[in-house]
Formats: sequence, C-alpha cells, structure tokens
Amino acid sequence: MAQPVVPNVLAARYASDEMARIWSPEQKVVLERRFWIAVLRAQRDLGVAVADGAVEAYEAVVDQVDLDSVGERERVTKHDVKARIEECNALAGFQEIHKGLTSRDLTENVEQLQVRLAVALVRDRVVAALARLAERAAEHAATAVTGRSHNVPAQVTTVGKRLANAGQELLQALVRIEELLARYPLRGVKGPVGTQQDLVDLFGGDVGLVDELEQRVAAHLGFERVLGSVGQVYPRSLDLDVVAAYVQAASGPANLAVTIRLMAGAGLATEGFLPGQVGSSAMPHKQNARSSERITALTHILGGHLAMVTALVGDQWNEGDVSCSAVRRVALPDSSFAIDGLLETFLAVLRGFAVYEDRIAAELQRELPFLATTKLLLALVKRGVGREDAHAAVKEHALAARGDGPAFLSLLAGDARIGFTADQLAALVGQPVDLAGAAPAHVAAFVAEVDEVTKRHPEAAAYEGADVL
Amino acid sequence: MAQPVVPNVLAARYASDEMARIWSPEQKVVLERRFWIAVLRAQRDLGVAVADGAVEAYEAVVDQVDLDSVGERERVTKHDVKARIEECNALAGFQEIHKGLTSRDLTENVEQLQVRLAVALVRDRVVAALARLAERAAEHAATAVTGRSHNVPAQVTTVGKRLANAGQELLQALVRIEELLARYPLRGVKGPVGTQQDLVDLFGGDVGLVDELEQRVAAHLGFERVLGSVGQVYPRSLDLDVVAAYVQAASGPANLAVTIRLMAGAGLATEGFLPGQVGSSAMPHKQNARSSERITALTHILGGHLAMVTALVGDQWNEGDVSCSAVRRVALPDSSFAIDGLLETFLAVLRGFAVYEDRIAAELQRELPFLATTKLLLALVKRGVGREDAHAAVKEHALAARGDGPAFLSLLAGDARIGFTADQLAALVGQPVDLAGAAPAHVAAFVAEVDEVTKRHPEAAAYEGADVL
Amino acid sequence: MAQPVVPNVLAARYASDEMARIWSPEQKVVLERRFWIAVLRAQRDLGVAVADGAVEAYEAVVDQVDLDSVGERERVTKHDVKARIEECNALAGFQEIHKGLTSRDLTENVEQLQVRLAVALVRDRVVAALARLAERAAEHAATAVTGRSHNVPAQVTTVGKRLANAGQELLQALVRIEELLARYPLRGVKGPVGTQQDLVDLFGGDVGLVDELEQRVAAHLGFERVLGSVGQVYPRSLDLDVVAAYVQAASGPANLAVTIRLMAGAGLATEGFLPGQVGSSAMPHKQNARSSERITALTHILGGHLAMVTALVGDQWNEGDVSCSAVRRVALPDSSFAIDGLLETFLAVLRGFAVYEDRIAAELQRELPFLATTKLLLALVKRGVGREDAHAAVKEHALAARGDGPAFLSLLAGDARIGFTADQLAALVGQPVDLAGAAPAHVAAFVAEVDEVTKRHPEAAAYEGADVL
Amino acid sequence: MAQPVVPNVLAARYASDEMARIWSPEQKVVLERRFWIAVLRAQRDLGVAVADGAVEAYEAVVDQVDLDSVGERERVTKHDVKARIEECNALAGFQEIHKGLTSRDLTENVEQLQVRLAVALVRDRVVAALARLAERAAEHAATAVTGRSHNVPAQVTTVGKRLANAGQELLQALVRIEELLARYPLRGVKGPVGTQQDLVDLFGGDVGLVDELEQRVAAHLGFERVLGSVGQVYPRSLDLDVVAAYVQAASGPANLAVTIRLMAGAGLATEGFLPGQVGSSAMPHKQNARSSERITALTHILGGHLAMVTALVGDQWNEGDVSCSAVRRVALPDSSFAIDGLLETFLAVLRGFAVYEDRIAAELQRELPFLATTKLLLALVKRGVGREDAHAAVKEHALAARGDGPAFLSLLAGDARIGFTADQLAALVGQPVDLAGAAPAHVAAFVAEVDEVTKRHPEAAAYEGADVL
Repeated sequence: MAQPVVPNVLAARYASDEMARIWSPEQKVVLERRFWIAVLRAQRDLGVAVADGAVEAYEAVVDQVDLDSVGERERVTKHDVKARIEECNALAGFQEIHKGLTSRDLTENVEQLQVRLAVALVRDRVVAALARLAERAAEHAATAVTGRSHNVPAQVTTVGKRLANAGQELLQALVRIEELLARYPLRGVKGPVGTQQDLVDLFGGDVGLVDELEQRVAAHLGFERVLGSVGQVYPRSLDLDVVAAYVQAASGPANLAVTIRLMAGAGLATEGFLPGQVGSSAMPHKQNARSSERITALTHILGGHLAMVTALVGDQWNEGDVSCSAVRRVALPDSSFAIDGLLETFLAVLRGFAVYEDRIAAELQRELPFLATTKLLLALVKRGVGREDAHAAVKEHALAARGDGPAFLSLLAGDARIGFTADQLAALVGQPVDLAGAAPAHVAAFVAEVDEVTKRHPEAAAYEGADVL
Repeated sequence: MAQPVVPNVLAARYASDEMARIWSPEQKVVLERRFWIAVLRAQRDLGVAVADGAVEAYEAVVDQVDLDSVGERERVTKHDVKARIEECNALAGFQEIHKGLTSRDLTENVEQLQVRLAVALVRDRVVAALARLAERAAEHAATAVTGRSHNVPAQVTTVGKRLANAGQELLQALVRIEELLARYPLRGVKGPVGTQQDLVDLFGGDVGLVDELEQRVAAHLGFERVLGSVGQVYPRSLDLDVVAAYVQAASGPANLAVTIRLMAGAGLATEGFLPGQVGSSAMPHKQNARSSERITALTHILGGHLAMVTALVGDQWNEGDVSCSAVRRVALPDSSFAIDGLLETFLAVLRGFAVYEDRIAAELQRELPFLATTKLLLALVKRGVGREDAHAAVKEHALAARGDGPAFLSLLAGDARIGFTADQLAALVGQPVDLAGAAPAHVAAFVAEVDEVTKRHPEAAAYEGADVL
Repeated sequence: MAQPVVPNVLAARYASDEMARIWSPEQKVVLERRFWIAVLRAQRDLGVAVADGAVEAYEAVVDQVDLDSVGERERVTKHDVKARIEECNALAGFQEIHKGLTSRDLTENVEQLQVRLAVALVRDRVVAALARLAERAAEHAATAVTGRSHNVPAQVTTVGKRLANAGQELLQALVRIEELLARYPLRGVKGPVGTQQDLVDLFGGDVGLVDELEQRVAAHLGFERVLGSVGQVYPRSLDLDVVAAYVQAASGPANLAVTIRLMAGAGLATEGFLPGQVGSSAMPHKQNARSSERITALTHILGGHLAMVTALVGDQWNEGDVSCSAVRRVALPDSSFAIDGLLETFLAVLRGFAVYEDRIAAELQRELPFLATTKLLLALVKRGVGREDAHAAVKEHALAARGDGPAFLSLLAGDARIGFTADQLAALVGQPVDLAGAAPAHVAAFVAEVDEVTKRHPEAAAYEGADVL
Repeated sequence: MAQPVVPNVLAARYASDEMARIWSPEQKVVLERRFWIAVLRAQRDLGVAVADGAVEAYEAVVDQVDLDSVGERERVTKHDVKARIEECNALAGFQEIHKGLTSRDLTENVEQLQVRLAVALVRDRVVAALARLAERAAEHAATAVTGRSHNVPAQVTTVGKRLANAGQELLQALVRIEELLARYPLRGVKGPVGTQQDLVDLFGGDVGLVDELEQRVAAHLGFERVLGSVGQVYPRSLDLDVVAAYVQAASGPANLAVTIRLMAGAGLATEGFLPGQVGSSAMPHKQNARSSERITALTHILGGHLAMVTALVGDQWNEGDVSCSAVRRVALPDSSFAIDGLLETFLAVLRGFAVYEDRIAAELQRELPFLATTKLLLALVKRGVGREDAHAAVKEHALAARGDGPAFLSLLAGDARIGFTADQLAALVGQPVDLAGAAPAHVAAFVAEVDEVTKRHPEAAAYEGADVL
C-alpha cells in the first residue's frame, strides 16, 4: 500500500495562496530555472562560450513545469538536481545550464530567493495590517474603556489606544523587517567549499570576472548584496534572522488577539461582527474569539520554528555539512506559512472587530468612581474637608460599596462630612474620556506614523485580506 | 488560481508508511467511526435505546472512507464534525451515533488514540533499533579504538562499547516510553466543559452509569486509564509528556550519529557499507555520513516541536480554549513523523555501519604509546629507573615525538637512561584491547539487557527497517 | 575594580531555602565528601588497602566546609577538584580518598545526587500542592460557577471542579516524577572514557569486584540502579527527562494560575484573601493576582531551561566532551529553583484563594437562562407549545435581551405563546448546581485519589509552604 | 538557617566585569537616580516648580549607593521603589524626585537603559572579535588546508578563509546589532496604563509639554527615539529583538569554535597556543579545545534565553501584566552575561589559535591527489590518453590506494596506460593553494570590510580581551 498523502496543514489551512505558491514544488522549479538563466546570461555576457539562442530558449520554457516528468527522470538518475537539469535542457533543446556550478550553488541561492520573496510578502501583509489597525484605532480613538493592569481596572484608556499600542509594536517589527530586506545578502556562486575554484577555472583564473558574474546574477535576482566569504552554504544565522523577524511581527497582533479574547469574555468586544449584522450586541456571550485564539496558536508554532533554526547556530562544521537540511526544509516554509496565516487571520479579526458600547459603558459606570478616587480626594480637600476626614470617608464607603461604583457615590452623597450632592459628585467624576490623558493624541500620532508607511507602500496597504476558515 | 498543494515534507520524505497512515485524513475518519461505535455499543449495553442492527451496520462501513463525499457535505453543513456524522449515518443507514456527545468528545479521544498508536509504533522502532545496536555492538565488542574526550585521544575503548553507550541511553528512553504508554489516560466522554451534563441527562441522572459507559469506551479503544476530572480538553501537558519522550528517544541515536560523522571524517567508519561491497576501505574519504547528518537534523526538528507543546503549558483558560488547536495539528503528527523518520534513518545507518579496521589500527598505533604513558612509567620505576629520570625522559621524548607514537618509542629505546629495547617497549605498551578495561564486559551486559527487551517484543525486534532516501 | 557580585535571582527571590541549599557551593562540598567516603568504604570492604581509621576520620569532617580555604588551595593548584581533595585530606589527616577515580567520577555522580535530591523535593512539594488543592476543591465542590470555553459562558461547572481539573493534571505529573525517581540511574565510577580501566587495574583485573564496588557506592548514595555502559558522562537525555518532568509539574498550577488571573479580572476570585480579613469583597477590583502572574512567568523560564537541555540531545561527541558543562551549570540548578519557586508560589496562592460568591452568583444569574435554553425548549414542547413556535419565541427574546438573562426570562414570561409565569420559568431554569452534571462527583473522586497520595507521603502532604515575596 | 547565597554562575564564571556591572544591584540604583534627575531637570526646565538646588543636590549623590540602607528602608515601607526614593531623598536632602511618575515609569526606562548599555558593550566586543579575526585570517590567508563538506575532504581551501567565513557571518550580526542600537526606542514616561494621565494633569492638560518632557528625558539618557503609544510596559518583542541579535552574534564564533574542536581532534590546530611556547607541536593530541567547547555551551544557553523571551510574545494582556517580570529578570541579564562571556572566550580562543602546519601538510599530502582527480583526468586526456582508459585507470588505482594519496600517485606512475612519471604527476597535482580558488581574495575582501568597521570603532577594536577561566 502506498504511503497516504499527508498535506502540509499550515499551508492548507492557514496560509494564503501567494505564500503557498512561493514554497510549492512547482514554483521551486521555476525559480531554479530563473537562477540558471541569470547565470547563463552573465556567463555569456562575460565571454564564456554559450550557444546562440540558448538563453532565449530557456527563457521560453521557464514556466513549463511537469513534476511527473521530473520525477521519472529522478528515478533514473537517482539525483534530484541532475533530473531537473535534464528536464530543463530537454524542454529548451540546449545543454548549457549549470556550467561551473555545484548543486549547492543552485539550491542555496534559490532557497534565498524564496526566503526573500516570503519576507517581502510578510512585509506587505504587515503594512496592510497597520493600515487596518490605524483605521480601527481612529474610529475608536475617543471610545473610553476601563484600562487594566494585572487584568484589574487601573485607569481609563480608549479602545483606539489599545489598538494603537498593538500597532506601535507592529511598526517596530516593520522597521526590523525592512532593515532585514535591505541587507539580506545572497550567498552567491561559490562552489562546493566556497572558494569558487570551478568558476575561477572556467574564467581562466580571473577572479575579477568571477566577481562580476556573481554581481550580475545577484542583480538579476533582485539582491543588492552578495556575501564575500562563505563555505558551502550561506550562514545559517540568516535563517535565524528571518524567523526571529517573523516572531517579532507576530507579537503586536498576538498581544491584541489575547486582549480581544479577554474583552470577548467580558462581553465588551467581538472579532466576529459581520457587515449587515443587526445591532452590536446580539448575544455577545456567544461570540467565540476563535480567530484570535488561532493567532495565539500560530504564535506558539512560530516559536517552535525559531527553536529549530536556533539549533542551527554553531552547528556548521568546517565548510558545511547538511545536518541543517531537513531542519530548513521544515522551518523555512512552515514559519512563512505560520506568519502569513497569522497575519491573514489578524486582518480578518480587524475586519470583524467591533465593541459593545453599552457593556463598555456599564463597566465604566461601575469602575469609574474608584478610578477617580484621587480626583475626588483633591476636590474634597479643595472644598475645605479635612484631609483625614476625606480619606476616612472615602475609604469607608469604598469598602462598603463592594466594587459597585454608583453605590460608592451614593454613600458619599449621603455622608454629611462630605457635603457634596449626588449630582456634584457625578460631575466631579466626569466623563471617562477626560481621564484618558493623552490617549487620543497617541492614537493620532500612530495614525500619522502609519500614513507614512502606507504612502511608501500604497498597493500593499490596500490589501484587505482573504476569507479565513 | 487554486492554492498549490504543499505536501508535509516530514511525512513524505522521512516517515514510514505506517506512521503516515496513523495521521492521514483517511485514518482519522476510520478512528472516529471506531470511537462512535464504541460509545454506541456501550450505550446500548447500558440501557440506552438503540435501533436494532445499528451497531453492526456501522461496523460494516468503518473502512469505507470517501473524503470527497465528506468534503461535499461539509460545504453544505459548514461544520466538519457534522459532515462526518452525516456521511457515516448515510453509509450505515442509521442515525444513532454521536448521541449525548459534543465535538470535543469525539476529537479529543480520537486524537489521543492517534497519539497512543504513534507512541506504540515508536516503542516498536526503539526495540528494533536496540536489537540492531546489540548485534553491531557484539560484533565489535573487542574492536579497540582510540577513545576520546574533548575530541582528543584519552584512553582506549572499543567500537562495541561506543555502540553500547548509545544503546544504554536508548534503553533509558525505552523505559520512559513504556511507562508513558502504560499510564497514558483517556480524557473520556466529558462534554463541553467536562461535567458530563449531557450524558448525566441521557442516563437520567445516574452518574454511575455514565462512569461505566466511559470505562467501556476506554477499554474498547485499548486504554486502561481514564482521567477523572477534566474540562473541555485533556491536559495538554500530556502532549508535552509525549513529545519529550520522543526527544529522549532521539538522544542515543543522535549521539551515535554525531560520533559516526566524526569517525567518517577521520576515515574510521562508514554508515554506507553495502552488502556485496568489496573490502572495507574503498575511498573512505568519499563516504558522506548523510544519514547520520539527517539524524542530527531531525533531532533539531523535534526540539522545535517540543518548544511548541511547551508553549501550551499554562496556556489553558478556564474549562479550555482552542488556542492550542493549530499547535497540536502541527506538533503531534509532525513530531511523530520526525522521530519515526529518525529511527528509520538510524536503522539504515546501523545496517550500513562498518569500520575501517586498518585506519583504526593506524590511529591506535600512533596514539597508543601516549595513552600508555602511565603504564610505561610504572614499568620503568619497577625496573629500577629513578622516578625523576623516568619522568624527565618520558616527557622529553614525548615532546620531541610531536604526536607520533612509534617515534616516541624509538626515542625511548635509544635512551640509555631507560634501558629497554624497542621490542620490550612494544610489549609493555601491549595490545590495545588490554587497555580497554571493562569495555567488553559492558558490551556483554548491554546485549543481555537488550535480550530481555527483544524477548518481550519479538515481533518489533525483528523489524529491519525500510529503505531511506 | 573587582567584579560586582550578582546573585542568582531565581534562588534569591523565588526558591525555598531547602532547594537553595541543595545547589549551594557549601552543600556541593559536603556531597562530594559523602561520595568519596562511600567509595573509600567500599574499597576497604572489598580488599583495597586503606589506612585504619581513615573512613571514620573523613566522616568526622564531612560538614566542616570552609570555601575560602578551598579557594586558596585552588589558587595554588590551579585545579578545583585537586584543591577540594587536599582540603578534605588536610581536615581528616589522611590521604586516602579519590583513589582510582577521575574528576568526572566525582562530579558526574555528585551532580546526579543533587539532581535526585532536587527531584525528590519537587515530588514532596507536588504532594503538598495536591493536598491543598484537594482541600480547596472539597470546600468548593458544589459552588456553581459559569463554565467557559473560548472564554465565554458555555455550561455550568463548579469552582471545586475547576480546582480538581488542575489537580488531575498535577496528579499525572506526580506519577511521571515518581516513575522518574524510581528509575533514575547513577552513572557510577567509570573512569575518563567509561571503561573503568583504572579501577580494573586497582582490583587486579577483577571486573566483578569493580562492579561490586559500584553497586555499594550507589546503594550508599541511595540509588537503586547503575548505568551499565557509559562514556565519560551519563547520558544527557537524563537531564532532559528531569527538566521535562519539572515543566510537566508546572502545567496544572500554571493553568489554574491563568484561570485565577481571569477570575480576578472579573472580580470572581482572589489569590490574596488573608486570614482575619473582613468579608469576602473588599474592593475585589484592587486584588492583583501577582502571585498567579509569577507562576506564569516561572513556567516560561522553565521552558527556556527545557530548551537548553534539549540542545544537549545529540551533542555528545565520542566518549564525551564538556560542551555541555556551562549549560548544565545553569539549567540544572536554575530549573530546580524555578519549579520550586513556582510550587511555593502556588501553595501561597492556594492559601489565599477565595471566591466572591456574590459576584459569582450575579454572573450566573445573568448567564443561566441562556445556559438553560435547551432545557427551556424541552419544557415548552412538553407543555404543548409547538416546536417551531417555541424556537421562534426563544430566539426572538434571547436576541432582544442582549445578554441579560433575567430580562430574557421576563420577555418569555410576557409572551402569550409561551404560557409560563415568571416563577414557573425561574423554577424551570432551576439551581445552577443542578446543571453542573457530575462535577461534584469528579471532585470527590479527585479528593479520593489525593488521599491515596497523602497516605503514601504524609509528611510531605503536611507542608503548608513558606511566605513568598 | 538563612538561605545560602547562590551566585549567578554566568556572571561569576563567564561574563566580563563591565557586563556584570551593568546588571549589578548597585548600578541599577545609580541608573535609577540618573533617570530621576533627567526627569526632574526636564520638569524644572518646562516650568514645574522644583526647589532651588535640588537637581544639583541629587546629582552630587548619584554614586553613593548603600544597598544595606536601602534594604532597611524596604523592610519598613514594604515597597522597593518607595525605599529607593526615600534613600535618594535622604541623601540629597530634597523630596523632589518621582513626581508624576509611577513605578513602571522608573523601572521600564531604567531596564531599557541597561539593555542599551549591554547591547552597546556587545557591539564593541563584536568589533574586537572582528579585528582579531581579520588579523588571524590575514596571517593564514594562503595556508592551504583540506576543505571538508560532510566532514570529509571535498576541495582545498585556506585556514584564513575558514576564519573569514566565520567573520563574514559575524559582520552580518554586527550590522544587525548596529541597526538595533540605532532604532531601539525608549518607552518613555507614560504612566500606569500608558495614557500619561498623571503627567498631563501635572502640566495642566498640556499634552505638548508632556511630549517635550519625554523627548528631553530620552535625549538625556542617550535615546534617539521614543515610542508613541504603549501601555504599562514597552513591547516585549523588543526583548526578543535583543536576545535574537545576541544569538545571531554567537553564530559566527560558535561555528568557528566547533570547527576548531574538529581541527584539534585531528591534531591540525589548537586554541591554546601560548606566547613563549616552543614550536608549534608540543603534544598536539593533548590540547583540549575547552574554550571552544564553552562557546558551544554558551550558545545553547542563549538559545534557552531566546525561548524565554519568545514566550513573552503574545502574552501581554490589556495594558500589561507582570507575568513577564521574572522572565525578564532572568533572561535579560543572563543572556547579556552569556553573549559577553562567549565573546570574551572567543577572543581568548583567537589569541591562542595556532595551526600545526606539519599535520595540515601531511593531511593535504594524503588527500590532495584525490582532490585533484578532475585535474588529473583533464591532463591525461589532453596528453592523448583515451577518456575511458583514463577513467578506468584512475578509478582502479584510487580504490587500490585505500585513501592514501601518495600511493595513488605511485600506482598511476607505474601504469603504462598513463605515461606520466611520478614527478610529472606531482607537478600536475601542484601546490595545494593553487587549488584554493579565490580563497585568498575572499580573505583580503573580508579584511578590507573589517578595516571599515575598525575605523568607525577604533577604541572597541583595540580591546584584546581578558583572561578566561
């Protein structure tokens, strides 16, 4: 009985089509062919004899991928790279590719190309997430909500600021990713131990020409930098750099996701508000924050991938072994799928995000008098109540009110030592948003920062996201 | 354009067919049906009204799995469990399954069944690996080799003992796995928050009958223990228990693998000796220890899965959320594939393992005089050479010999202070294996321990392993 | 300027005195001396010449530890083990210890002794935690509370069951730890590459006597098992076994801690109820669940230590290098401090744990009518209301009630289609605990399981815990 | 009995004095005072009433740290921050500090200051390591050595290139660290939930002044950027950013360390060559690469710290809890100690690094004829030997030579089909360095890159490192 096919669950359930394509077997064949053509073109232009029309013939067949045919060749050659060379040659009708190269010259550079495409896609999705966050934050910039530390009421903040806090963290991650993209260097065409011996031979000992070839290949593939001195492989800490950046990109969304799960539990917010839905409060307690939970899960998965590539640090012997091979086959695509799925899920959460204003207001009504205690004391003293008396009265009634703010105010109003009416006390406590300090200003600043980002990446920012499971 | 299919690389490249089957979509359907039947049969036997012939009708269709048909139903119902219930009912012609159950009752218990099957398969492969290790260790029990600490020569040991050391570690892991299997408990049929409210209703409030039902279901599925008090899910630290046991099982093989990589680098051993191959030394420097490298890689991957399930510790809110769902979809099958692939690869390495005796002997010839220095000094003093003179001479010649043992002996033989001939010195140094202490005894003891294991699991021990890539 | 002293923060802030002592520099000296004496006594009894009175003389000075004096000797000898041998000899007035041993024979076995003492202490603390959990669970066995999945109301459960769920998970961990303790094997006295060459020499080639010596030493140190075949070191996967068991032991407490943090946020429970405190509700919103948060933090720390020892898997070259040394110097004591501190903190949380019954009741009052919807529908149909009418009415009013259960009942009572009075409806919904299924039975079963444990470990169970920061 | 003092082993054994100081309890007090003064000065300059001479009085006592006195105050106040405020006030004779601040305003910003100082120190040590690597690489730029992939001979490279490969990886990490330092933003003075409510009050509602205050404080502390919108804490993914950068910085050194361990095992190199030592080969087999092993160990430890801070991703509830507190108390200082100790150890390894040229030459002599097989075949064909004959002869003799290169050449020389003399063959194989391709050019390019770095950081580059244990 043949082995049953087990699909990659991260690709199939969570990742976008675009990310799945970058790492698909078909696309790998296409990218390899592009690499071969880049090398071949550079070799031709730098004086290596290449048959006329060969470059063009290869270019014409780049996208003609038949994995079955490649598989049949591999069963004969027992060598996967060789099989793909033969297939490509057969399609083009030439035998010009892969000259002066080893398998690693092909696989290392193509994997780096996949990595760069994946990171660029993640960059775009982060931009989209920031754009949506800024929109939601602006909507709710002045929606006061009970701010919490240790998960208990602490001071007033606004829903918009809560969103902006997550966005601020994501902005940091965006800078991190953009820096990474800007400097991410290609290993280049360096041969089996990194000395370029075979290419130096091919170019008759002219190291300068070898260098020039490498620069042209890199430019053709869209890389601005090439590593100078490497062994068989590019430094695996570059993989760490990438996956760590993914995890960093997950953090803002994941922190907001857990907060939405908390708010959903208290009936304050939902991730599942659908356009056309009537009202904002149909059985809020039935709104499971499943997508937010998924964001938590995908974050944990990314942490596992980070552990995998961390294990590659200090694990490279001499000029390089392949003890990293299976690790990278798993961790590089799978972490890309995970962060991509996480950001898609986050976009869905932001699309569906809504607050239940009545529940938020009810919570504030209950908590606000306690959150405003300092303000009350100041007013009492100002009015001439003795400081000790004020303290004693406030403490006594706060205890007696057992967490019920309005009751607390009633008790104060009924206390002759205080001398404020219920209305006066209510006026003193004031409107919640007045206790939110610079929260609206922080939101505005965040929105302005995101504007700069979306101006640089208008197309990415326009992405609204796909449906998620 | 549809999303390209990305296969699970661990299943496709490394895992055995048997392990892939345990986690395949088809097999999950079968296991779910077995669970439903176990519950239905217990319900019937405990007095719940069940249509005549229903149990038998369901049993007859257990293996008729048509994923496409299930998929079509899911597109209608928008609910995966409901789709699978309908499919099963349609096949059997009854509507009796899943009564008094929630989705979690189904999915939790079936996943645990998959876990137990996977762990049992790993146990069997560990037994096979131990059997092969014992065979190889016995072959090489007295093959002296330069023992190393800090990767430099330290004392003589034997190749067989080196294998036995790895085997001893693996034996510890076997005990760990067997203990795990013996106590691994089923979550049971506990309902959406763990109170069994719906089953208690179904049995008219008789908690004892609910208990009895659960025990019968567990027994039917092969579990000896059922958890008493749980929430929506079984404790996720059981997943940690499983994956940590996998990592522990990887350790002995992984330590031997890295040692084989070192020995291959020095030309002392190979993992790739094929039956029928002539001689034991055909270009040893060309023997890449690729499979051993793969074992290293799969170990790192397992470490990542361990990190994923570690993240579930302390992450369960109230009666349970699904913030662990995606994590477990990845980590449970994938870690099973990784350890399974690792053990298959290890079996292949043990099949191909051979030593290059001439190279081992040459190394010993070079190192042995230094390793025997203490013995030499004792003999000199015994013979009447002054202790200080002896020390001085030995040190002087050791330095001058620059790491070349025979040269060291020649220098000593030519030194009048010493008064030993070359032959006498050679006899003093003696045969390498005489300096290997209890190494052969340790091997014998290991082999005896493994014999006990293979007697308990003769079928598992007979498994020779499949071809690996 | 001398290096400032940086204390080990885990030992100083979180761990108990007992755990700190196990890993303190002073205690290590004591344990080494006990090991030396065990070996010396066995050597003497097995015929090796040992000066009269030596064993007794060493025994008399075991606890006379002067780290400064040892430090001075180390500055002279430049070798830490040698310095400690000299100090011990000087104190006893003999030079008999460490014969036939290498440094590793000392350090490996003493570290294993520390590990076993630490694991045994953790076992005891787990027993104490289970005893307290059972007490708290019994108190609250029938205290109904709104059970939640996805952090939103799902079905009724009880506070006691919530505690029992955590306890059930911890019981699993206890079995895991007890199995580990029962099989944890000593590396034994095996020499620099594991062959026992030096001891075999000492005993004139009698491998049986060497074996006997090892068994006696192990028995003296309290170990029941000795590893047969090892290299320079014991298999490092034993360290993984230990730290993974610690993490597993953290899981039940950590899951309960996060749930207490959630309950504290909703004003339902506190970890900080002090004996003598008046009432159960003095400003519940001010009760920070700081200790529960610390449990979360210490769990994450343990995960880091698990990652460290996971990195040792497959990292042992040949007979053993010391590339694990610094890792184990950090991970073994620090993970012991972390789990110990976590369990001490958990005991403190359980001491202070209390629920705010009025808030719990208020939550149930609001949610119960929704949680009882199924029950209501059944009653309506039974009473003769058409199934469709019943459904329509219930759905309509549930939506209109906007999450307010009593309002939902009022709306139903006012609907002529329904025909139930408010009182009848309230009676139908019933008492919350009636909807908690087998929850009280689960608690009772858990308490009974813990009783078995405390009977086996009465002293450990009696431990109440120390004050925490 | 008091708890025994357990020192922080990473600080005490591995870290430099400078790094220990950054994280010492004394230094924390100093940094807190600097922060308070920065705030006070800014408040004064922005119009808040501050007593004359207060700023100067505080500045005068910044370094007067008496931890015992602080401890006594804490026993009275039961609040650590309050105790430190009182101590500082008592020393200065004013009560002006900490106005409008919460504890978090103090602790968050001071911890970030410690982080920035630590990262800057790591940057400096990386620069020093690069400078030493460039020196060693230049020395050995043309020292041919057998390059290896899969740990077996592959092609010729040079020792200098091997060093440059590690250096190239470290250069990537340097860029990463410098980018991090350039953008690492201060949380700023944001109050208990991030709204700056208390400061907005202090400045009479003028958000602009609050902003200005924050900018001045940041500038005073040396930060160029301040986060706009945060909650109680700065985003914990910044901690991930830092620790991940540390791990990346470890990778080049750790890969070289493992390669040195391999070279030491083959007798090719040592990390322990001391100035004044005679010759280059005194018992090379006795040279333990203990420091290189330590680098491996410290890398694993860093991986554990990375796991700890990864656990903080997505773990921040609402405006922030302290469930990260203990994690950061451990992971931030300890990871700084680990990377610092690793780089100090690496500097020591580079100081002591030397190669055994005779052993390297002997290895090349044995391997080179095999490494030059392709070249030989080309020459044979050029000379007129039939391609098939050439292949057959070369294969036959290669097998017969059993890994012995000179024997291989002798066999070829004695084969009439070949027609080359021994001398001709030797000439054909040529000098090893001629087969090293662009290796010397790569070294030169690396040295030039490092020159740019050392020009930017001349002081850091001059650091030679301290003695290590």
